[in-house]
Amino acid sequence: MSNVSLGPGAEFDAIRELLARWGPRAIGIGDDAAVVDVPRGDRLVVSVDAAVEDRHFKAQWLTPREIGYRAIASALSDLAAMAAAPLGVLVAIGVPSSWRDRLSEIADGIGEAVDTVRTHILGGNLSDAGLLSITTTVLGTVYAPLVRSVARPGDRVYVTGRLGGADAALRRLESGETLSPFHARFGRPVPRIDEARWLSDRGASAAIDISDGLVADARHIAAASGVALELDADRVPCASGVAVELAIESGEEYELLVTSPRELDTIAFESRFRVGLTQIGRVVDAPAGAVRVLGALVANARGHDHFSR
Amino acid sequence: MSNVSLGPGAEFDAIRELLARWGPRAIGIGDDAAVVDVPRGDRLVVSVDAAVEDRHFKAQWLTPREIGYRAIASALSDLAAMAAAPLGVLVAIGVPSSWRDRLSEIADGIGEAVDTVRTHILGGNLSDAGLLSITTTVLGTVYAPLVRSVARPGDRVYVTGRLGGADAALRRLESGETLSPFHARFGRPVPRIDEARWLSDRGASAAIDISDGLVADARHIAAASGVALELDADRVPCASGVAVELAIESGEEYELLVTSPRELDTIAFESRFRVGLTQIGRVVDAPAGAVRVLGALVANARGHDHFSR
Repeated sequence: MSNVSLGPGAEFDAIRELLARWGPRAIGIGDDAAVVDVPRGDRLVVSVDAAVEDRHFKAQWLTPREIGYRAIASALSDLAAMAAAPLGVLVAIGVPSSWRDRLSEIADGIGEAVDTVRTHILGGNLSDAGLLSITTTVLGTVYAPLVRSVARPGDRVYVTGRLGGADAALRRLESGETLSPFHARFGRPVPRIDEARWLSDRGASAAIDISDGLVADARHIAAASGVALELDADRVPCASGVAVELAIESGEEYELLVTSPRELDTIAFESRFRVGLTQIGRVVDAPAGAVRVLGALVANARGHDHFSR
Repeated sequence: MSNVSLGPGAEFDAIRELLARWGPRAIGIGDDAAVVDVPRGDRLVVSVDAAVEDRHFKAQWLTPREIGYRAIASALSDLAAMAAAPLGVLVAIGVPSSWRDRLSEIADGIGEAVDTVRTHILGGNLSDAGLLSITTTVLGTVYAPLVRSVARPGDRVYVTGRLGGADAALRRLESGETLSPFHARFGRPVPRIDEARWLSDRGASAAIDISDGLVADARHIAAASGVALELDADRVPCASGVAVELAIESGEEYELLVTSPRELDTIAFESRFRVGLTQIGRVVDAPAGAVRVLGALVANARGHDHFSR
């Protein structure tokens, strides 16, 4: 029972309920910590992420199951950005008494996210709290991680999927519309775990997941690599009906932005994953950290038609 | 800057402040996740623990530095219970605006705890929150972990340190006394990392850290191992002036309870670590999960003079 532990306040029943919901998805429970093996030769990849009610989402936007799923899936996206294979997750839930009767549905969403990438729950914590929060630590393994700092002038720049849906969903949620065609892009993001490993195996070098928006995350790669990125607005794949000006700013997309010295086989990628892979630009030798968006995009308030930082 | 990431709300300054405070203690920052190596042949040990204001401590009981220190140190104690060597920690902080000006002191306490066991901060997260919370994931490595399930009849039962100080400190804090001689036992627990590895190397088999109290944690070992434990109240090392009835119930001690088929060299242990190691009982072949406390202890409300579960 330990390692999925609880704060003071005797929430044993809630813990038992979580473990019953998770079943064989929860492993290593019973000691003070879980013990797992890292494949020989692989390196360990770790990250922690929190999803907090009223900070990262509003209760009325998502079902409890979506809240659980989304917290885990968005944390797992950090493993995708490194091309790591998931080893497991640890989930610390802060649960207000008003949420207690929805905890089992949240647990089901957590279980579903873990199943999506064929991994396990290695530990957890349940605390009483003022706001619902799900703090997720993700563990993965990789032989050669993708990092942000290795983009070089001449590299091609690619993005997976279509952008703008997450922002469009968020705008509709904020105006009270929970049944928009974009909803799944916000409520049920898919971490691109398998896609990242495919890209890494075929020559991708630098990578990041698009959580801050295409331009902002491109800037992170540019800064870390000491290069500039030139993106072609006309080539950015946009969600249906979304303007490119919005698509390139849309955060929490959980798609991958990668650079590659080699041309990547976008047709093979799409036929394998049923997700697009699109070359949208090049790495150039220009002021470090800059991103220039070329093409049909007209100058907008944030000035993406110029090199920007 | 990533991997120590922040929720929406632009808390970049706070992140920069944390990283400045931590300096070289924070490693692997800059990508979506940190990459670390597990020594060849070792297994990975992981656990997560949360310290929440008004649930696990009250703001007036501890300095901000102690709050940070204690959150990390108590989480690290789970590694000690497995005899694991720390690989690093990930720290997710939920910080209300009223706590913002004390964040740097909290960070210093976190840094101090990490220094105590010579490990690193591998990642973090900062979110706005209603209550201060510190959620700590600990990572360690070990060749052969101590677990709870391997105590066998005939094994000796040992405990490190002296018990009861944490409870005595807590009682005084609850009555408004923050300067008791016991305070450090609550505010600055020392994870028994090196001690655990010494014990494991010399034959200790089952182990647990005393977070629920000696008797309650002995019961966890007894249940996991399918045996009973017989403890001698007269031998339980008590903090100065604390009655044994209180010492055996005192939680959050973060001392180790271990079983060993072999006699352990308590004198060598004490001379090495300046901490006591005391044989306090035996594992017996009696109803699984039971703990009997023998000796001078008079029957008390919780009935520890009988086999209890």
